[in-house]
Amino acid sequence: MFTCDLERMDDKIKTFSKFGDTGHGGITRFSLSPEALEARAEFTKRCKILGMDVVTDDMANIYATLPGEAGQPAIMAGSHLDSVRQGGNYDGVLGVLTALEAVETIAKEKIPHKHPFTVIVWTNEEGARFEPAMMSSGVITGKFDKAKMLVSKDLDGITFAQALEASGYKGAEKNRLSADRQMALVELHIEQGPVLENEGFDIGVVEGVCGMVNYEFTFIGQADHAGTTPMKLRKDALFAAVKTIAYLHEELDKLDGKLVYTTGKISAHPNIHTIIPDEVRFTIDARHQDPEVIKQVVSIIHSIPKVVEKCETSYAEAWSRKTVSFYPPYVDFVEQASLELGYSAKRMYSGPGHDAQFVTDILPTTMIFIPSVHGHSHCEKEFSTLESCFKGANVVLGTLLKIDAAN
Amino acid sequence: MFTCDLERMDDKIKTFSKFGDTGHGGITRFSLSPEALEARAEFTKRCKILGMDVVTDDMANIYATLPGEAGQPAIMAGSHLDSVRQGGNYDGVLGVLTALEAVETIAKEKIPHKHPFTVIVWTNEEGARFEPAMMSSGVITGKFDKAKMLVSKDLDGITFAQALEASGYKGAEKNRLSADRQMALVELHIEQGPVLENEGFDIGVVEGVCGMVNYEFTFIGQADHAGTTPMKLRKDALFAAVKTIAYLHEELDKLDGKLVYTTGKISAHPNIHTIIPDEVRFTIDARHQDPEVIKQVVSIIHSIPKVVEKCETSYAEAWSRKTVSFYPPYVDFVEQASLELGYSAKRMYSGPGHDAQFVTDILPTTMIFIPSVHGHSHCEKEFSTLESCFKGANVVLGTLLKIDAAN
Repeated sequence: MFTCDLERMDDKIKTFSKFGDTGHGGITRFSLSPEALEARAEFTKRCKILGMDVVTDDMANIYATLPGEAGQPAIMAGSHLDSVRQGGNYDGVLGVLTALEAVETIAKEKIPHKHPFTVIVWTNEEGARFEPAMMSSGVITGKFDKAKMLVSKDLDGITFAQALEASGYKGAEKNRLSADRQMALVELHIEQGPVLENEGFDIGVVEGVCGMVNYEFTFIGQADHAGTTPMKLRKDALFAAVKTIAYLHEELDKLDGKLVYTTGKISAHPNIHTIIPDEVRFTIDARHQDPEVIKQVVSIIHSIPKVVEKCETSYAEAWSRKTVSFYPPYVDFVEQASLELGYSAKRMYSGPGHDAQFVTDILPTTMIFIPSVHGHSHCEKEFSTLESCFKGANVVLGTLLKIDAAN
Repeated sequence: MFTCDLERMDDKIKTFSKFGDTGHGGITRFSLSPEALEARAEFTKRCKILGMDVVTDDMANIYATLPGEAGQPAIMAGSHLDSVRQGGNYDGVLGVLTALEAVETIAKEKIPHKHPFTVIVWTNEEGARFEPAMMSSGVITGKFDKAKMLVSKDLDGITFAQALEASGYKGAEKNRLSADRQMALVELHIEQGPVLENEGFDIGVVEGVCGMVNYEFTFIGQADHAGTTPMKLRKDALFAAVKTIAYLHEELDKLDGKLVYTTGKISAHPNIHTIIPDEVRFTIDARHQDPEVIKQVVSIIHSIPKVVEKCETSYAEAWSRKTVSFYPPYVDFVEQASLELGYSAKRMYSGPGHDAQFVTDILPTTMIFIPSVHGHSHCEKEFSTLESCFKGANVVLGTLLKIDAAN
């Protein structure tokens, strides 16, 4: 079994943690910001030293390729270098760095291989500077309209098109990922949740991305004075929302134990302590790998009456996502590579979305998770041990070589 | 029985509705704003035509006095001319206009009387431009520190002191209401609630102002990703808040039926649909005329455990107000005047606070309510029928004359 180099892995993580360092454990590295361009420059420099060919497409996605036999399609691995505001040093960037470490190992150890290996860096996965998230993988896989994306503005009024031009990374549309020149994609990511750590697994073998629904509820009551309106005459929109959230918990808890649902956002109007709220809204986000369970969730939502505690109650689907399944033979390769390395591995579904889910429509794709300490993510406390990162890199390497050998 | 003039009452309401007219049924007439100064000028003009002496004190409270026998202390009636943003044409101003109409009737009908009658206009009752509410009655009755009030700023950064100077209504501190020169205060106000209308009463005989407590609750959970955190590992601060609000409703509903309580304000952090809330706060405001019931409310609040749904739970009293009782003989006068006029009258407590409650410490004081259609207040839909306003003016007149006759 080939394995990566622990010291090199450590150096990569430490080096990239400097680009956008907030000074207290995390980074702010918005897509195409000066900090992100520093990270891209370091990535490109390291790839060129390894003899890789580096090109970009029209969305500034970077493709750094270690050659294989002539005429063979490339096997890809990678993720993104951008972060949320005050994010951590692992989300996204670790997928790029483990891919680079795996390819560096192949190059330096001169591991025989048939296919080229391409490390991909996606532009603007987080959507933290320019909405939406997963913008560039969305554009090149036909999910998003490029013209709309180009006019997406950051808080300073700069458009994505302007940032793209200024970055120096805008390349040709013909360089986009395609089924002609590429044959597979592997994305490693931190779990962003506590399951692997809690259950003591080294590696998450990601079978797919959970389907989800997101609904917004609205309750319309009557705004009256807190001191003058007898209880029996009130139409308290917050009380109606409270009863509904309690009902949702009661009913949804009866469904499959793997279901996760979240009422993350709530607002009340006029939100004054001496006025009965006349309008309350909250969101519910529910995710499960089995579309049947999502149907059950929707059916429970639909069972909520039109009038709750005398308030008009309505709900609307904000969006939904179908369950995405990764390519089973390559999912198996991830599991086999883990076990051969002596790592414990758990098959699981991803709750969050990742660029890889868009690519499944074009190429056979799979993902690898490593544990997030305490499950933290999208914050400066986000952490994965060097040992976990190293194990992850080894599984990337093993999976790439298995795909190479099988095709 | 003397009665006021319906046409004159109508004219007063219509005229004052122009000052700050929003164009869709209500007014925005912040304290000491140009619109409020127009209303003060019209009020002063009308008082002077009636031969009243008009002075102001250092907080710009206006005292317009119709003379009585020499050396007699004055009997006062009045309220405020300022409004909240997009408020109605009745809250406050009706207390001034019914007092003026009553005194105008006494003047024009040459009704014999011993005591002077003073119509008072309080400055900045609403606190909508300069916090806090009931600022000027609070200062002259020693509840608020004047120096602190003078530096209260509006949204444009103008201090109350600056607005006071610019208004032309700042007078001498020696003109403040005092037990030497005044002997009673009557304040008419709209009910701001639906009880009188629902129960078919013409007049509310206000026995006092309900005691109240206001608490803020805080729930500390753990912010985690909506898609990755199994339900059993969550610390969802919104769910903890929901359980607590439901518990409060369940327990508080067992107390006396006249208790009113309101959870009017809620906030969640980070308030993002894909993140489990880690901090939720809500307020509860509870009011009842009987201090024992308020104690029961506090005891229920104190029964909430320190940990709810795995979230740290805490609460703190934001403020409280003791029950204020008005001067019983004058409360009786309001009831007698109403019944002698053939009006139905209900004894009740005020939920909201009013300037009169501060004056009770200095002078015998009482209040009169008239019905609010549908209970609306602090909004442009605020409305009381002309008939109700007229009946209110007649009760003010009757009460003033009864106080005059009894002293």
